[in-house]
Amino acid sequence: MKLGRVVGTVVSTINTPDFDNRTLLLCDLLDPSGKPAGGYLIAVDTVGAGAGETVLILDEGNSARQVLNAPGAPIRTVIVGIVDAVEEGPQPA
Amino acid sequence: MKLGRVVGTVVSTINTPDFDNRTLLLCDLLDPSGKPAGGYLIAVDTVGAGAGETVLILDEGNSARQVLNAPGAPIRTVIVGIVDAVEEGPQPA
Amino acid sequence: MKLGRVVGTVVSTINTPDFDNRTLLLCDLLDPSGKPAGGYLIAVDTVGAGAGETVLILDEGNSARQVLNAPGAPIRTVIVGIVDAVEEGPQPA
Amino acid sequence: MKLGRVVGTVVSTINTPDFDNRTLLLCDLLDPSGKPAGGYLIAVDTVGAGAGETVLILDEGNSARQVLNAPGAPIRTVIVGIVDAVEEGPQPA
Amino acid sequence: MKLGRVVGTVVSTINTPDFDNRTLLLCDLLDPSGKPAGGYLIAVDTVGAGAGETVLILDEGNSARQVLNAPGAPIRTVIVGIVDAVEEGPQPA
Repeated sequence: MKLGRVVGTVVSTINTPDFDNRTLLLCDLLDPSGKPAGGYLIAVDTVGAGAGETVLILDEGNSARQVLNAPGAPIRTVIVGIVDAVEEGPQPA
Repeated sequence: MKLGRVVGTVVSTINTPDFDNRTLLLCDLLDPSGKPAGGYLIAVDTVGAGAGETVLILDEGNSARQVLNAPGAPIRTVIVGIVDAVEEGPQPA
Repeated sequence: MKLGRVVGTVVSTINTPDFDNRTLLLCDLLDPSGKPAGGYLIAVDTVGAGAGETVLILDEGNSARQVLNAPGAPIRTVIVGIVDAVEEGPQPA
Repeated sequence: MKLGRVVGTVVSTINTPDFDNRTLLLCDLLDPSGKPAGGYLIAVDTVGAGAGETVLILDEGNSARQVLNAPGAPIRTVIVGIVDAVEEGPQPA
Repeated sequence: MKLGRVVGTVVSTINTPDFDNRTLLLCDLLDPSGKPAGGYLIAVDTVGAGAGETVLILDEGNSARQVLNAPGAPIRTVIVGIVDAVEEGPQPA
């Protein structure tokens, strides 16, 4: 998984029915300190993320289909969480 | 998913039957502002995209096979939508 | 898919039986104008491609196994076509 | 697989239930000499790795689901081992 | 597939049982001329490769599981052959 920041929404009128009622968010990829790392992904929102929020992006088709409970959907990338913090540690177990 | 712009068609005379009657479009990858990002993909068209149009490219084999309803096709990349706009937002839910 | 140019053959004496009688071609990756893009892939030939020819490379395991009709083969990359031309267009539908 | 070093923990309050009770570790990717190679991955811990430890990162969804014994989990990246050493060799068999 | 050169062995004491008795080789990725291309992969050996040898690396989970005859193993990258030569050609069929 990677860290991203929501920066926009993609509006697309012609597409497959599987994307109906799903928000496609444009997310800048971030480095661990929260600065843009120089790339982006378009991900399906599953957590109600808003502009400016730091999110956890999962970029694997089977995972995306599981999260959306849509076994036949053509999808690869989803936002699975809003990130509250990146903390130092943990200490070794 | 990534943003792309259709810039051409790939003509190939020797290939597997699964590509018969399918248009292979050459798409420049774009950054979020619509400028070329420095790479490209060859994708199967599913939406009737034309030269110069901004499209949504999905690069995962299982997704591509779903979109084309072709479970056994050797394919990885499809165009799933024409992009009308990339808007700021959304506001946090 | 990506464009490539066949530049050589890889000779390997110790490998799994699935590669017996299969030619492993070394292909430079190309940009859309046909110039080397700075990387390469080793792909299994399925079309009788020869040195110097521009080819269509498909880099996904399930696709490669489909093309070769070899469901259990350990393979990821195949050449699926010889490219005749990259044309401008198409016009929007 | 790649070498990584644990540098932090990602705290995320909204996510799918599959991540409950799982620690998400932020890992810098390393070059073979142990220096940061310039990227990172967020991986699910399976070995009790602590900050500063060098780990073996496996970045493939089906593998991650196997390691966690969670066939339906939306996950792609796991830490599968703590690295003790990278040794020269082996000598040819 | 990619060309690599075996440069070391990764020693890891905590990992999943699937890696017991398997050698994890550190391989520099090579360009077609045999020079380091600037990256590396950690691969499971299946051919008895030794330090300094040029090898054929296959980086796909399903392929790796096939080669090892281990359908449930968490693994993505294997060495499938030792490379004897990279030859010019072939001539077009």
